[in-house]
Amino acid sequence: MGREEDVKIGANKFSEKNALGTGAQSDSKDYKEAPPAPLFEPGELKSWSFYRAGIAEFVATFLFLYITVLTVMGVNRSTSKCASVGIQGIAWAFGGMIFALVYCTAGISGGHINPAVTFGLFLARKLSLTRAVFYIIMQCLGAICGAGVVKGFEGNARYELFKGGANVVNPGYTKGGGLGAEIVGTFVLVYTVFSATDAKRNARDSHVPILAPLPIGFAVFLVHLATIPITGTGINPARSFGAAIIYNRDHAWDDHWIFWVGPFIGAALAALYHQIVIRAIPFKTRG
Amino acid sequence: MGREEDVKIGANKFSEKNALGTGAQSDSKDYKEAPPAPLFEPGELKSWSFYRAGIAEFVATFLFLYITVLTVMGVNRSTSKCASVGIQGIAWAFGGMIFALVYCTAGISGGHINPAVTFGLFLARKLSLTRAVFYIIMQCLGAICGAGVVKGFEGNARYELFKGGANVVNPGYTKGGGLGAEIVGTFVLVYTVFSATDAKRNARDSHVPILAPLPIGFAVFLVHLATIPITGTGINPARSFGAAIIYNRDHAWDDHWIFWVGPFIGAALAALYHQIVIRAIPFKTRG
Amino acid sequence: MGREEDVKIGANKFSEKNALGTGAQSDSKDYKEAPPAPLFEPGELKSWSFYRAGIAEFVATFLFLYITVLTVMGVNRSTSKCASVGIQGIAWAFGGMIFALVYCTAGISGGHINPAVTFGLFLARKLSLTRAVFYIIMQCLGAICGAGVVKGFEGNARYELFKGGANVVNPGYTKGGGLGAEIVGTFVLVYTVFSATDAKRNARDSHVPILAPLPIGFAVFLVHLATIPITGTGINPARSFGAAIIYNRDHAWDDHWIFWVGPFIGAALAALYHQIVIRAIPFKTRG
Amino acid sequence: MGREEDVKIGANKFSEKNALGTGAQSDSKDYKEAPPAPLFEPGELKSWSFYRAGIAEFVATFLFLYITVLTVMGVNRSTSKCASVGIQGIAWAFGGMIFALVYCTAGISGGHINPAVTFGLFLARKLSLTRAVFYIIMQCLGAICGAGVVKGFEGNARYELFKGGANVVNPGYTKGGGLGAEIVGTFVLVYTVFSATDAKRNARDSHVPILAPLPIGFAVFLVHLATIPITGTGINPARSFGAAIIYNRDHAWDDHWIFWVGPFIGAALAALYHQIVIRAIPFKTRG
Repeated sequence: MGREEDVKIGANKFSEKNALGTGAQSDSKDYKEAPPAPLFEPGELKSWSFYRAGIAEFVATFLFLYITVLTVMGVNRSTSKCASVGIQGIAWAFGGMIFALVYCTAGISGGHINPAVTFGLFLARKLSLTRAVFYIIMQCLGAICGAGVVKGFEGNARYELFKGGANVVNPGYTKGGGLGAEIVGTFVLVYTVFSATDAKRNARDSHVPILAPLPIGFAVFLVHLATIPITGTGINPARSFGAAIIYNRDHAWDDHWIFWVGPFIGAALAALYHQIVIRAIPFKTRG
Repeated sequence: MGREEDVKIGANKFSEKNALGTGAQSDSKDYKEAPPAPLFEPGELKSWSFYRAGIAEFVATFLFLYITVLTVMGVNRSTSKCASVGIQGIAWAFGGMIFALVYCTAGISGGHINPAVTFGLFLARKLSLTRAVFYIIMQCLGAICGAGVVKGFEGNARYELFKGGANVVNPGYTKGGGLGAEIVGTFVLVYTVFSATDAKRNARDSHVPILAPLPIGFAVFLVHLATIPITGTGINPARSFGAAIIYNRDHAWDDHWIFWVGPFIGAALAALYHQIVIRAIPFKTRG
Repeated sequence: MGREEDVKIGANKFSEKNALGTGAQSDSKDYKEAPPAPLFEPGELKSWSFYRAGIAEFVATFLFLYITVLTVMGVNRSTSKCASVGIQGIAWAFGGMIFALVYCTAGISGGHINPAVTFGLFLARKLSLTRAVFYIIMQCLGAICGAGVVKGFEGNARYELFKGGANVVNPGYTKGGGLGAEIVGTFVLVYTVFSATDAKRNARDSHVPILAPLPIGFAVFLVHLATIPITGTGINPARSFGAAIIYNRDHAWDDHWIFWVGPFIGAALAALYHQIVIRAIPFKTRG
Repeated sequence: MGREEDVKIGANKFSEKNALGTGAQSDSKDYKEAPPAPLFEPGELKSWSFYRAGIAEFVATFLFLYITVLTVMGVNRSTSKCASVGIQGIAWAFGGMIFALVYCTAGISGGHINPAVTFGLFLARKLSLTRAVFYIIMQCLGAICGAGVVKGFEGNARYELFKGGANVVNPGYTKGGGLGAEIVGTFVLVYTVFSATDAKRNARDSHVPILAPLPIGFAVFLVHLATIPITGTGINPARSFGAAIIYNRDHAWDDHWIFWVGPFIGAALAALYHQIVIRAIPFKTRG
C-alpha cells in the first residue's frame, strides 16, 4: 500500500480499518498537524512580510472589484443581454478573478481576498487574530477603491442606474432565502479552500494540491451560476461592502447585514465540517 | 526507452512488440494490479473512515444537487434565456461541481458522488459491496436533501412550474433514444473515471493523473452539452432520484427507470471496456 | 543556470549563445531525439497493443462524433439560439471532447482522434506508415458510427433538416477562403500537439508537459470559435468524413475535398515549422 | 517548517518574523535572484536561438490576431448576437489563444506575444534591450500579417463594415477612461505574468508554477470580459497596431496612442509593484 494508492479513487483503504472511535487518528500517521496559530503574535507586527501581505490583499481585492463590477456594469448597460458577455460572463469574471488572484497572491498572503475565507481559516487557527483583522480591513479598503474606480470610469448617473454591482435580495425571494443562499454558497467556497490547502498533508492526496487555485476559482464561479438570481451572490463581505459603500443607496444597505452574517456562518460551518468531520482534529493529540 | 517515452504521443511502442495474445501482459511490468476488493469486508464497518466517507458522499451530493438544481431553476425562471446563465450555464454547473467536488472528496471517499460511478468501480472490484451499497444510499439521501433545500428557497409553486430539474425524455425523442443517450453519456463519464484513476499505474502516463478531477468534470459538462435537449441529462441516478422525489409528479416517475437502467448499463460497459480491452486484466496473473 | 531557468519566461538564454548556423544544435544536449520510426514495422502487427491502440482510436472518434454532432443538432434544432447551448457551446463540445479523449487515450494510442494529427506525426516520423494508415481507417470508421448513432436518435427527417454537423463552405466565403481557414486552423492544432508532446525532452520546459491534453483541447475550441462561421470547422478529416457519409447530400460532398486537403496541408506545415525552425532536426546528427 | 508549509494558504509564516525594514530579505534565502540582463548582449546576435525566438514571436502573434480578429468578425457579422459565439466568445478567443500560445512558445522565446509584456520584463531586466526591440518588431509584423489574412478571407467591404477588430474608445466613455482601462487591464496581465514566472524561485510556492500559462491566459480573458464595452480591450499594442494598420480608418488612428501609452504604463506599474513591493529587489544584495 504505497503510492499506488494515491490515485485509486474508490479504493477501500484497508490500512485504515481501525476500530471506530479510535480509528480516526490513523490517517494522521503520515503528516503532522501544524500547531494552531496564536491569537496574538507580536513578532508579526515587526516583519515586512506582514505588511506586504496586507498590501497584497489590498491590491488583489482592488483588482477583484474593479474587473467584476466593470463586467456587471457592461452587462446591465447593454440593452440586450445577448450583446454583452451575459450573466454567465459575470459568473466567469468573479470565479476567474479568484482563480488568477489566488494563484498570484497565495505565496505572499495566502490569497484570501475575502473576509469569510480569512474568518474560516482563523477559526481553524491557521492565522493569528491580529493578521485576520488586518487582512479584513485591507480587503474592505481594496474593495471600496476598486468599486470607486469603476464609478469614476462610468460616471455617477450610469453607475446608479445599473446598481454598481451591489448585493440585494431580489424580488421573489425572502430575506431568509437570501441568507440561506449566502450560507450554503460560502460553505461551498470555504470547504473547497480547506480541501485545497489541507490536501498535501495527506499522502493519499498527492495528485490534488497542484491545482489548488483552480477549484477555488471554480467554486466561486459555480455559486454565482446558482445564486445570481437570488442575491447577485455575495459570499464575500468585502465585495458586498465595497459595492454598497460606493453605490450607497438605502435599499442596498437594508439587506447588507445578510452579506456579512451569511458568509461568516457559512465559513464557520465549513471550518467545523472540515476540522471535526473530515480531519477529526479535536480528537487528535497534536504532534 | 525511459521517461522520454512518457510524453511521446504517437510513439510506436516497440517495447510492447510481443506476440498477439500473450503480449497484452507486457505493459504490466512496471506496476502491479491491486488485488480485487472483497465483496464483504467486515473490518470496514468498525472504521471511522468508512462512515466519514459516507458522510463526505452525502455532503458532496447534497451540494451537487443544491447548486445544479438552483441553476436550472434560475434559467427556467428567466423569461428570456439570454437574461440568465443559459443552457450552457447549466452544463457548466453540473460539470464544474463534479470537478470541484471530486477534487475535494477524492481523498476521503474516492469522490464518486454518483451511483453509476460507484457501480462501475464495484464491477471492477475497486471497492466492496458493503461500501458500494452504503455510498449509493448516502448519495441518494444527499440528493434528496439538496433538491429539498432548493424547493424551500424557491417555494412550491415556482418549483413545480419550473420542473425542479427533474429528468424526463423530452418530446420528439423515443424512450429508446433517451435510454441510449443515458447509456452512452454514462459510458463517457465512467470511461473517463477509469482512465483518470488508473493512469498512474502505468509509467507511460506519468503526465496524466495530475489533472484527474478536471477531465472527469469536463466529461460531465460535455455530456450535458449534448443531451440536455434529449433527457435533461441524468447519467447520475442519485441526481435523477433526488430531483424526482422532491418534484414528485407522475410524468417524472414514468420515465424514472431510464435514469437508473441507462447509467448502470453505461457504467458496466465502461468497466468492461477498460478492464478487458484496455487493461486485459482477465488475461493476467495477479501479482 | 540550472532549474531556475525553467520557468523564467523572457530570459535571455546565454547558454545558447552559439554562433549562428552551428548554434541550433546546442539546445539538444540535455535530451536525445528518438530515432525516426521505420516506415514498416512488421513486428507491430503481431502485438496486441497495436490492435488495442486502433480500438482506442475507434472508440474515441466514435464518442467525439457522437457528443459533438448531438450538440450541433441541439443548437440547430432550437428555434432561438438562446434556448440552446449556442454556437459557443458547440465550440466547447469539440474542444472539450478532444481534451477529455486525449487525456484518456494518450497512454494507449497517443490520442490522435484525427487523421491530420496522425499525418503530421507520421511526417515527423513519430509512428510507422502501417500504424498511421491503421489509425486513419479506425478513426474514419469510428466517426461514421458516431454520426450514425446520432442519426438513429434524431430520426432521418430531423437529421437532414439540421444538416447533421456536415462541413460545407458557408455562403459569403470562397472555396479558397474555406481551404485557407482549414489550413491555418489545422496548423494551430498540430503545432500545439507538437509543442505539447515534444516539450518534455527539453529541460527548459519542465513545467509545460503536465497539461498536455489541455492546450490541445483549447486549440480545437479556439479554431471553432473563429471558423464555425466559415466552414463549420473541420480541421479533422475523420470528423468531416463521418458526418458527410451519414448526411450524404450532394452539397456536402461538393466541398468535401477541402476538409482533407486543407487539414493535411496545415498538418504538414506545422510539422515542418516544428521540426525545421523550432527543433532544427535536419541539421542535427542523431544520437 | 518544511514542505508542509508550501500549500498552507493562510499560514502565519513565523520563519519570516524579521524586523521591519531588514526583514524583506529573509524570504530570499532559498533562491538566488538571477543577475539583471545586460542592455546589449552582442553574443545574442550570433545565436540561432535569438532569431528562432523572434520567428516564434512572429508566428504566435500572427496566429493570435488571425484567430481573434476572425472571431470578432464572426460575432459582428451575425445579425443576432445569439447566433454567434457572442461577446463572451470573443473574450475566450483572446484569453484562450494567449494560454495556448504561451504554452507553446514559453520554451522558445518566453512566450510574450505582446509588446507590453516584453516592456515589463525588460524593465525588470529579464531580457536585453536588443532582444526586447527585436521581439516588439516581430510581434507587430506578425500582428499585421494575422489581421491581413483575415481581411483576405472576409473581403474589404465586410472587413471595414465590421471594423476589423480595431480598438477605439467607445461612445459614452472619455479618452481618460479608456486610457485608465488600458492601464489597469495591462497591470492585471503583467502582474500575473510576473507572479507566474517568478514563483518557482520561492520554495513556498512549489504548487504554483505548474499552471503558468493558464492564469496568464485567464487574466487576458478576464480583462476582456470587463473592458470590451469600453475600448474593445487592447492591453497589447501589437494587437491594436496590427488591427489598426489593416483597418486603416481615421477614427481608429485618432485613439491609437492610448493603446501604446496605456499598456506601457500598466506594464511599468506591474513591474514596479512586483519588483519593489513583492520582491523588494532594490533592497537586496544580488547573490
